[in-house]
Amino acid sequence: MHVHHDQLEIRTNGKGLYEITDEVQSKIDRFGVQSGTATVFVQHTSCSVIIMENADPTARSDLEKFFDRLVPENADYFMHSSEGSDDMPSHIRMVLTRTSETVPIVDGQMQLGTWQGIFLFEHRHAPQGRKVWITIIGKM
Amino acid sequence: MHVHHDQLEIRTNGKGLYEITDEVQSKIDRFGVQSGTATVFVQHTSCSVIIMENADPTARSDLEKFFDRLVPENADYFMHSSEGSDDMPSHIRMVLTRTSETVPIVDGQMQLGTWQGIFLFEHRHAPQGRKVWITIIGKM
Amino acid sequence: MHVHHDQLEIRTNGKGLYEITDEVQSKIDRFGVQSGTATVFVQHTSCSVIIMENADPTARSDLEKFFDRLVPENADYFMHSSEGSDDMPSHIRMVLTRTSETVPIVDGQMQLGTWQGIFLFEHRHAPQGRKVWITIIGKM
Repeated sequence: MHVHHDQLEIRTNGKGLYEITDEVQSKIDRFGVQSGTATVFVQHTSCSVIIMENADPTARSDLEKFFDRLVPENADYFMHSSEGSDDMPSHIRMVLTRTSETVPIVDGQMQLGTWQGIFLFEHRHAPQGRKVWITIIGKM
Repeated sequence: MHVHHDQLEIRTNGKGLYEITDEVQSKIDRFGVQSGTATVFVQHTSCSVIIMENADPTARSDLEKFFDRLVPENADYFMHSSEGSDDMPSHIRMVLTRTSETVPIVDGQMQLGTWQGIFLFEHRHAPQGRKVWITIIGKM
Repeated sequence: MHVHHDQLEIRTNGKGLYEITDEVQSKIDRFGVQSGTATVFVQHTSCSVIIMENADPTARSDLEKFFDRLVPENADYFMHSSEGSDDMPSHIRMVLTRTSETVPIVDGQMQLGTWQGIFLFEHRHAPQGRKVWITIIGKM
C-alpha cells in the first residue's frame, strides 16, 4: 500500500463550475496506483468540490441559478460582509456542498459514472487562486 | 493493509430512500476486513448516498417532503429539462446531499450510531438501476 | 501502512458550531502518522461535521441564522416531531451538511487551509453528548 499527495492550483474567474476530472486522473496515472481511492480536498471556505453532470452546460448554469436563489447575496441579516456581498453566501454554499470527495480507483481509473465529472465550484466573483489536494491511497 | 472493491446494483421504483446498510456490511464481512474504512460511492448524478435516521419512517417521508419544497420540479428558470420535470431537480438534490460517504470499520463492524442507516436517495420518478461502489481499505 | 481509530466525546449546549480541529490533530500527533488521511465521522443523525471559516465569529452566527431560515422548526407538514420542534429539522440539517469528512495529512499535519476549522454542528437545543470517530490511515 502506498500514499501519495499532490496539489492542483486552479485559477478561477468568477462564480461557477470548473472541471478538474482530467487533472485528478493525471495524478493517479503519474503515481501508478491501480487499486485504491482518490480523495479530493479543497483548502478554502469560499469554494467547494462537487461531482456533477458534465455533459450538458445548461445543467451547470441551472445549478448556479438555483444557488443564487437559495443563498442570495443581499440577505439583510448577514453580519459577515467585510469582503463584500458574496463573502457570507460563499461560506454557506460551501457548507451546503462539499470540501472533500473520495472516489474509488479500479484498474488505474477513477470509477466515475458516465455523466459524472469532478468540479471546483467557485462562489466568489473576483478571480481566485485555489489549491486542491489530491491524496491517493492504494496499491501499484 | 488491503484494498477491496465491490459493486451493489439497486433497483429503485420512484423518488425516496432505499436502505443499503446490510448490503454494505455484507461486503465487509465477505472480505474479512477488521479495521479500516468503507467508502460508499454512487456512480450517478441524479441520486445520492446519505446517512439518515433509520427507525421511524416518518423521518424519511418528512425529509422527502422537505426536498420537494426546497427543489421544486416546476421552477420556470430551469433550461435542463430534456428528461422531464425531475431532471434538473435530481442534479440539484444530489449536489445538496452526497456522492460518497466514508464509514470507520472497527472489529469488523461499521461504526454507525444507534439510529444511523446508509441509504440510496433516489431523485427520479421512473424506475432506475443504480450502481454503488463499496471500497474497503484496512487490515484483516 | 497503519490504521488507527479513536473517539472524541463532545458535550454540546444548544444549537451551534463547536470547533474540534485541535482535538483531531492531537490524535494524529499521538499515533505519529506522517502521511495519509484523517476521516472524521459523527455517529448521530441530529448533528453534523463541517469544515467552516474559523476566524470571524459572525461567519458562524450568520451560518446558523441561514439554517434557521432554510429549515424552520415550525413547518406544519412535519410528522416526525416526537422529540420536539427541533427533531425533524435536525435530521434535515444533517442531510444538507455532512456526516464524514476526510482531510489529507502531510508531514504529520492536517492540510487545512488558513481559514479552515473542523466543527461539530449541533442541531438540537438540549445538551447532548456527541461521539465522533477519528480514523487515521497512513505511514509513520
